[in-house]
Amino acid sequence: MTYFQNISNIKYEGARSKNPFAYKYYNPSELVNGKSMEETLRFSVAYWHTFTADGTDPFGAGTAVRSWDRHTGLDLAKARVEAAFELFEKLDVPFFCFHDSDIAPEGDTLKETYENLDPIVAMIKDYMKTSKTKLLWNTANMFTHPRYVHGAATSNNADVFAYAAAKVKRGLEVGKELGAENYVFWGGREGYETLLNTDMKLEQDNLARMFHMAIDYAKEIGFDAQFLIEPKPKEPTKHQYDFDVATGLAFLQKYDLQDHLKFNIEANHATLAGHTFEHELRVARINGMLGSVDANQGDTLIGWDTDEFPTDLYSTTLAMYEILLNGGLGRGGLNFDAKVRRGSFDADDLFHAHIAGMDAFAIGLKVASKLIEDRALEDVIADRYSSFREGVGLEIVEGKTDLRKLEEYALSMGEIQNKSGRQERLKAVVNSYLLETLSSVSV
Amino acid sequence: MTYFQNISNIKYEGARSKNPFAYKYYNPSELVNGKSMEETLRFSVAYWHTFTADGTDPFGAGTAVRSWDRHTGLDLAKARVEAAFELFEKLDVPFFCFHDSDIAPEGDTLKETYENLDPIVAMIKDYMKTSKTKLLWNTANMFTHPRYVHGAATSNNADVFAYAAAKVKRGLEVGKELGAENYVFWGGREGYETLLNTDMKLEQDNLARMFHMAIDYAKEIGFDAQFLIEPKPKEPTKHQYDFDVATGLAFLQKYDLQDHLKFNIEANHATLAGHTFEHELRVARINGMLGSVDANQGDTLIGWDTDEFPTDLYSTTLAMYEILLNGGLGRGGLNFDAKVRRGSFDADDLFHAHIAGMDAFAIGLKVASKLIEDRALEDVIADRYSSFREGVGLEIVEGKTDLRKLEEYALSMGEIQNKSGRQERLKAVVNSYLLETLSSVSV
Amino acid sequence: MTYFQNISNIKYEGARSKNPFAYKYYNPSELVNGKSMEETLRFSVAYWHTFTADGTDPFGAGTAVRSWDRHTGLDLAKARVEAAFELFEKLDVPFFCFHDSDIAPEGDTLKETYENLDPIVAMIKDYMKTSKTKLLWNTANMFTHPRYVHGAATSNNADVFAYAAAKVKRGLEVGKELGAENYVFWGGREGYETLLNTDMKLEQDNLARMFHMAIDYAKEIGFDAQFLIEPKPKEPTKHQYDFDVATGLAFLQKYDLQDHLKFNIEANHATLAGHTFEHELRVARINGMLGSVDANQGDTLIGWDTDEFPTDLYSTTLAMYEILLNGGLGRGGLNFDAKVRRGSFDADDLFHAHIAGMDAFAIGLKVASKLIEDRALEDVIADRYSSFREGVGLEIVEGKTDLRKLEEYALSMGEIQNKSGRQERLKAVVNSYLLETLSSVSV
Amino acid sequence: MTYFQNISNIKYEGARSKNPFAYKYYNPSELVNGKSMEETLRFSVAYWHTFTADGTDPFGAGTAVRSWDRHTGLDLAKARVEAAFELFEKLDVPFFCFHDSDIAPEGDTLKETYENLDPIVAMIKDYMKTSKTKLLWNTANMFTHPRYVHGAATSNNADVFAYAAAKVKRGLEVGKELGAENYVFWGGREGYETLLNTDMKLEQDNLARMFHMAIDYAKEIGFDAQFLIEPKPKEPTKHQYDFDVATGLAFLQKYDLQDHLKFNIEANHATLAGHTFEHELRVARINGMLGSVDANQGDTLIGWDTDEFPTDLYSTTLAMYEILLNGGLGRGGLNFDAKVRRGSFDADDLFHAHIAGMDAFAIGLKVASKLIEDRALEDVIADRYSSFREGVGLEIVEGKTDLRKLEEYALSMGEIQNKSGRQERLKAVVNSYLLETLSSVSV
Repeated sequence: MTYFQNISNIKYEGARSKNPFAYKYYNPSELVNGKSMEETLRFSVAYWHTFTADGTDPFGAGTAVRSWDRHTGLDLAKARVEAAFELFEKLDVPFFCFHDSDIAPEGDTLKETYENLDPIVAMIKDYMKTSKTKLLWNTANMFTHPRYVHGAATSNNADVFAYAAAKVKRGLEVGKELGAENYVFWGGREGYETLLNTDMKLEQDNLARMFHMAIDYAKEIGFDAQFLIEPKPKEPTKHQYDFDVATGLAFLQKYDLQDHLKFNIEANHATLAGHTFEHELRVARINGMLGSVDANQGDTLIGWDTDEFPTDLYSTTLAMYEILLNGGLGRGGLNFDAKVRRGSFDADDLFHAHIAGMDAFAIGLKVASKLIEDRALEDVIADRYSSFREGVGLEIVEGKTDLRKLEEYALSMGEIQNKSGRQERLKAVVNSYLLETLSSVSV
Repeated sequence: MTYFQNISNIKYEGARSKNPFAYKYYNPSELVNGKSMEETLRFSVAYWHTFTADGTDPFGAGTAVRSWDRHTGLDLAKARVEAAFELFEKLDVPFFCFHDSDIAPEGDTLKETYENLDPIVAMIKDYMKTSKTKLLWNTANMFTHPRYVHGAATSNNADVFAYAAAKVKRGLEVGKELGAENYVFWGGREGYETLLNTDMKLEQDNLARMFHMAIDYAKEIGFDAQFLIEPKPKEPTKHQYDFDVATGLAFLQKYDLQDHLKFNIEANHATLAGHTFEHELRVARINGMLGSVDANQGDTLIGWDTDEFPTDLYSTTLAMYEILLNGGLGRGGLNFDAKVRRGSFDADDLFHAHIAGMDAFAIGLKVASKLIEDRALEDVIADRYSSFREGVGLEIVEGKTDLRKLEEYALSMGEIQNKSGRQERLKAVVNSYLLETLSSVSV
Repeated sequence: MTYFQNISNIKYEGARSKNPFAYKYYNPSELVNGKSMEETLRFSVAYWHTFTADGTDPFGAGTAVRSWDRHTGLDLAKARVEAAFELFEKLDVPFFCFHDSDIAPEGDTLKETYENLDPIVAMIKDYMKTSKTKLLWNTANMFTHPRYVHGAATSNNADVFAYAAAKVKRGLEVGKELGAENYVFWGGREGYETLLNTDMKLEQDNLARMFHMAIDYAKEIGFDAQFLIEPKPKEPTKHQYDFDVATGLAFLQKYDLQDHLKFNIEANHATLAGHTFEHELRVARINGMLGSVDANQGDTLIGWDTDEFPTDLYSTTLAMYEILLNGGLGRGGLNFDAKVRRGSFDADDLFHAHIAGMDAFAIGLKVASKLIEDRALEDVIADRYSSFREGVGLEIVEGKTDLRKLEEYALSMGEIQNKSGRQERLKAVVNSYLLETLSSVSV
Repeated sequence: MTYFQNISNIKYEGARSKNPFAYKYYNPSELVNGKSMEETLRFSVAYWHTFTADGTDPFGAGTAVRSWDRHTGLDLAKARVEAAFELFEKLDVPFFCFHDSDIAPEGDTLKETYENLDPIVAMIKDYMKTSKTKLLWNTANMFTHPRYVHGAATSNNADVFAYAAAKVKRGLEVGKELGAENYVFWGGREGYETLLNTDMKLEQDNLARMFHMAIDYAKEIGFDAQFLIEPKPKEPTKHQYDFDVATGLAFLQKYDLQDHLKFNIEANHATLAGHTFEHELRVARINGMLGSVDANQGDTLIGWDTDEFPTDLYSTTLAMYEILLNGGLGRGGLNFDAKVRRGSFDADDLFHAHIAGMDAFAIGLKVASKLIEDRALEDVIADRYSSFREGVGLEIVEGKTDLRKLEEYALSMGEIQNKSGRQERLKAVVNSYLLETLSSVSV
C-alpha cells in the first residue's frame, strides 16, 4: 500500500545532481559545526498543510490531488496517517507536528470528538514505534469551528472558554501519550475584530488564566514538554493579542508566565508584523525565549499569510545565524508550516517543496556556520562596541556612573569620532559567503 | 511687535460661523462631562513643527514663509519665542512642548550649546510669568546631530552615550526650571539599521541604564514630572526599539522601569506600527500606562510619518473615548505633533491647522462623552461578557477552576450558543452619534 | 413563507429614530439635487455575499445562520431566490447582482451546469415581473472551480479558455434574458502567481481576445448592456492584470477596447492597490470611464480584501462627490459587494449592514451635493488654476507656445508667487459640511 | 590632486580575493553571452547620491565626510567634477547621470542659474574628452526648489510651468552638448497632495503638453537621445501621476506619446508601487518600452524610498533575466540611483557600495545568462502554453473562433486536465543556478 508510488526515498546526491527528487545540499549525517545536519536542523513536517489542506482559498475550491482523498470520515483520517508516515520515511524527516483536528474529524459532541481522536492517536503511536519520526509538537485547533467565532480562551462566552479548556487538556494528554517535545499555543482567534464590542483586559486576563491552568495540568500529569506561544499580528482576526515576540514578552512578564513559555517563531508572521524573520529570532534569543521555528516564508508585497515553503537563502542564512548563536533550538525544531501553492496541486509538489525547503535551510546552516567560524560579523560587532569595554563606556555598563559624571566627561572631551557602520560592505560579505561557502566546503 | 499681524485672537463662534479664523466647536470654557473643554483637552503646540520647521522634505527645500526668518542665530531663537507666545495667546492654548534644539541652536561644543540655551530658557520663563501657557513637556533632541548617527543611548560609541547623558541632564534641569508637567523620551535613533552590525542586547541594556540615571537625577533635583516614552516602529531607523506600546511594556517590565515611565502615544506612530490610534491608547489604558498624546494623524496609504494635523473625526472620537475612560490624561495633554503640509506654507495655515485640529478633538470629546453617558457601547460590552459574571465564567475569573473541572463541564453542556458581535450595527451607532450629538447638544 | 420573519419592511424614519431597523438618512423618494435618492444611488444587493456566502475564512468554517440552509441542491438555490426577493422588498432596493454560480450549483459537466441554471433563471425572471428590483449586472464566476487554477481567459490551458468562453456566452444570454443593465468581468484568476512560469504577453493577448469575442457576441444577440471590468491588484493571485483603473486603461487602449468597456470600481480594491476610493473614481471619471461601483470598504491596516459594508462617511462623501460630478452613474449603480463580518452571523445582521451602508451613502450624497451646490471646493480649484485661463497659461493650454517662447518668458519674469494649497483648511471645510449639512437640510 | 587618496583603481581579482577594494565577480572584459560584461551592464554612477548628497534625512543632518566639502559655491561644484571623474576612473565605470542642480548651484534668477551651469558643463565636457565615461542621461531637477511646491509641469501656476519649460529646454541642450544617450523625466512633484484642491485632468494634460514640447525641441536641435519617464507611485507627493509602468503606458497612449518615450525603471519605485522589480521590467519589455534601469533596492518592510545599493542576488538575477530577454538595454544602462546609508559616511563606503552593486549585477548577469542558455525556465513556459500552438488554442490565438464555436467545443470535451505550475520546484532551480553557475563557469 503506497500513496506516493512514483517517489523513492529521497537521498542526498550533491549539488550537481540533476535529479529533482534528491537533496542537493541537505545531507542528514554530514557534520556542520560538530553536529550532524539532522541534529541541528530538526526538520518537521506540518500535518495540516501536507495531509489535510486541499488548496482552498477565499476565492476558490480545493485543487489538491491526494490519493487518500478516495476515503472519507475516520477512514480518511487513517489513510492520512499511513500517507504521513510514508512521506516522513521517504523524506527522512525526524519530526512532525499536528493540531488535533488535522488528524481526526471533530464530532458533533466533545465526547464524539474524543472518540474520533483516540483510535488515530493510537494508530500514530503504533506507527511511531517503528518510525524514526517523532512528534515535535502538537496543539489543539481552537479557531476553525464556529464556536470560536469570538475567540477561544478570549471568547466573550464562558462556555467557549470551558470547551477550549477541555481541548487543551486533551491536547496535553495526547502530547504526553505521543512523547511530544513541545506544546504550542497559536491564538488564531485570540484577538478582536473591533474595539467597539471588546473588553480587551478581561480577554487578556482570561488568556493568561488558560495558560496557567495548562501549565498546572501538564505538571500534574507529568508532561514535561516545552510550552510555546506563536506570535502573529493579525489574520484571521483584525488584531491578534500575540502580535509579535515583543508583545508576547510583555504579556508573559505581566502574567508571570515568562518562565513557563517560550516562542515558536514563524517567518511569515514576522513579516506580517513588519519585522524580518531574523529580527524576531534575535529578540527572542537575547531574551532567552527562542523555543522553536515555523519555517516558511511570506511575500512582503502581499498582505496576508502565504505560508510559502522557504527558499530565500538570505532568510535561511540569517535565521540559522541566530539559531546557531542561540546554541541551537534545544527541544524545538524547524517545522515546515508551509503549503504548496494552490497551483502546485500534485503529490509530487509536496516532495519538491519539502526538498526545496530542506535544501534552503541546509545551505543557510552551512553559510551561517562559516560566517560564525570566521567571525566575519562578530569581529565587526566586537570592534564597533569596544568603547564599552573600557573607560567611561565600562563605567556605564557596570553602573558606576551617573548623569553628573557623564556631563563632566562630555564637557571635557573633544569632538566625537564615529566610525562608519559599513552596511554595504557587510552585505557584500554575506553575498560572498553565500556564493563561496558551499564550493569551499566541497573543495 | 507682531508676527501674525493679520490674525486676531481666535474665539469660539459656533458651528454656523463662516469665519475661518474662529473655533466652531472648541469652546474652552464649555463644560462637557463636568469639566471645561480646556481642562479635559489640554491642548499643546509643538514648538518644532510650528516655529522651527520650514517644510523641507527629502526631495525639496523649505517652503515656509515665516516672518521671524529675517533673523539669524540667537536672534532668530529669540524671535521664535516672541512669535510662539503671540501664537499661544492668539490660539488660547494652555500648553506647549519643545526639544532643546528647537528653542536654541546647538553650539560647536556642549558648553556653547548650554550658553545658547540659557538665555532662551530665561526668556521663555519670563514670558511664562504673564502667559497662561505652560510647558506640557520638554525633551532633548538626540537624533538630529551627526553624532547620533548610530544612536544616542544605544550608540555603539560610549562618548555619544556620555554626550546624550549630559543633554538629558540639562533637559531635566530645564524642565524643572520651566515647571514642565512631563519629560519625554523619543528614541528616534534608538534602534538599528541592520542586524549585521548590531549588538541588540547591549544597546537595550544601555537604553535602560540611561532611563534609570535620568530617574535618579530627577529625584535628586526634585523634578517630579511624569516620564514618558514615545513609541515609534521605525523612521528614521529601520527598526526602533520602542516599536509600539506593547513593545515598550515588555522593555519597561524587563528593566524594572514600569513604575517610572508611561507612554506618550502618537496617532501616526500607531498606524506605522500597524495599529489604530485607539488600539495603542487602549493597550496603554488597560495597563495603567496612558500618559500623554501626540495628537496628529497619518495617511495609512503612505508608509512614512506624515504628521498631519488631526481632522479625522472617527479617530478623534475613539481617542477621546479611551481618554475619558482613562479618567482623562492626568498630567499629560494633547500635543499637536503635527505639521502643516509643505504646500500650506503661509503663516495663516498655522492657524487654520490648529483650529482644524482643536475643533476635531472638541467634536471627538463631545461625541465620546455622549457615547459614554448613554452607555451606547458599554452596555453592549457588559452584556456580551455577562457569562463571566456567574457560574463557570465567574469560577474562571476567580481562579476557582482548572482544566479537569472545565472538561467535565464541557462534556456535560449542550450546544454552545454564541451571539452576533453586531459590528455593522455598532458602526452605524457611532455614525449616528457623530452626526446627532452636536445638534442635540445645541438644541 | 418567509425567511426573515422578524423583519418588517424597512422605512425611512429620520435621524432621531431609535429603531435599528429603519433608515435614518436614506429616504428613497427625497429629492437631492433634483433627483430622488433612489434614482441617484441605485443601490444593489450582492447575491453572493448575502445569500450564498457562509462566513468561511481561511482559518475557519462557516458561521452564518441562514434559514434557507435547511435545503440542499437545487432546492437550496430556489430557497435563496425566495429569500432574495423577500430581502429586496424589505430593504426596498432597486437592483441586485449575481455570478452564475451564486444562483445555481455547478454540475459535473457544462451541460449539467446549464440545466441547473435554466430553472433558476426562469424563476428569477418570474419574480422580477412583480418586483421593482432589477438586475444591475450579472457575470460568470470564472475563479472558484479548480479548472481555473491557472486562470480562465489567461489560463495556460486552451481548454480552460474554451470553457470560460462558453460561460461568458451563457452569462451574456442570461443577462439579456433578465434585462441586465451591465455585464461585469472580474478577473480573479487573470494574473499570475510567479513570473518564473508565466507568458505574460500571451495571457494578456488572450484576455483581450475574450473581451472582443464577448463584445461581438453581445452585439450579435442584441444584448446592449454596458460592459465593465473590475480592477483589483491582487488576491487571490499574486498579481492581477487589472491592477487598478490606470492599468486597465493601458490595457483597454492597447487592445482597442476603450470604447467598449468601462470600470466597475470597488473601494476595497482601490485601497489594496494603494489608492483612495475617490482617486480611482476620479481617474475613471476624467477619462470618461466611470461605469459602476462596488460599494464597500476595506481596512487599510489589513492587507487583504475585507469587503466590509461601507460606513466611513468621508469615503461615501468623496465617492458621491465624484459620482455627482460625473453626472451620476448612468446605467451603473452602487452595489454592496460587502459581507457581514464572520462574527455577525445572524440574519438580522444582513439588515443592520445594508441599512448602515445605505444610510452612509445617503449621507454622502447629501453632503457631496451641498459641497457642489455651494462650490465649496470647485471655487477653490477654479481660483487655484486661474493662471491657465489667461496669458502664458492660456497659450500653454491652447498649444500656442513652445520651449523657446516659454524660456524667453521665464527669463523675463520676476520671482514666482505661489499660493498656499490650504489642505488643512479644506479638510476642516469638509468636516463642517459633514456635521452641518444634514441639520441644515432638515431645518 | 586626489579626493580618494586611499583608493587605487578597482580591478577584478576573482571570487576568492580578500581585498575589499576589488571586484570579485565583475570583470568588465569577460564575455558573457557573447558580449563583454561592460557592454551588457552599462553601469552608471548617479552624481546626486555620490557627489551632492550628504546623508541628511527627515530627522537628521548630513553625516557624509567628503573631502570636496572644504569648498563652497562654484568651487565646490568644480571640485565635485574633479572628484567625480576620479571616482569614475577608479571604478572603471562607463557612464554617469546627473540633474542640472547636482552639478551646479541654482542662482537667484534663471539667468544666474544658467551662468552657474555653463562653466561646469564645459568642464565636464572637457573631462569627457580624456575619460571613457559617457553621459548615460541627464535631466532637470524640477522638484527641489520651493517654486515646484505644487508641481512643475503639473503646477497650478502657469509661471512655474514656464520656468520648468525653460529648465527642460536647457536640459536638452546640455544633453546634446555632452552627448547624452538618454534624457529622463522623473516627476517628483507631478502628482497631488489632496484631491480636494486638484484639477487632475488639467494637470495631466499639461504634463503631456510639456512632453510634446520637449520632443519637438529635441528634434529641432538634433538631440536624438532616447526619452524616458521614470515611474514612482508616491513620495514626495501623496500620489505621483507616473505611478508605475502600466500607469505610464496608459498616459503615453492617451496622449500619443508612446512612440517617443520609454521607461526608466527603478527597483525601489517598483516595490513602493506593490510590484517586484522584475514585474515592472517584464511589463515594459512585453510592451517594447524598456528603456533604462535605476539599479537600487528598497526594503519592502519600509514604506519610503530607501534607495539602497543593490545586493539582493535574486533581484539582480531576475532583472538581468528580463534585460537579456529584451536583447539588452539598448541606449539605456544600469544607473546606481542608490545612496550609501547615513551611517556609511566615509568616502570608502562609496567604493564599497558601488563594488557591492556591480558585483551583484555581474552575478545576476551570469546566472540569468546560464538560465537562458539552458532554457531552464523557457522550456517550462513553452511546454505550459503548448495548447495554444495547436487545435482550439491555435484558433483562439489566430482569431479564428468565437464564443459559439468555443461553447460547442466546451460542451463536447471531457474533463479538463491541468498541470501543476511547479512554483516550488522552479524556485529551487533558481537557487541551484544561483549557487552553481559561478563555480561551474569558473571551472
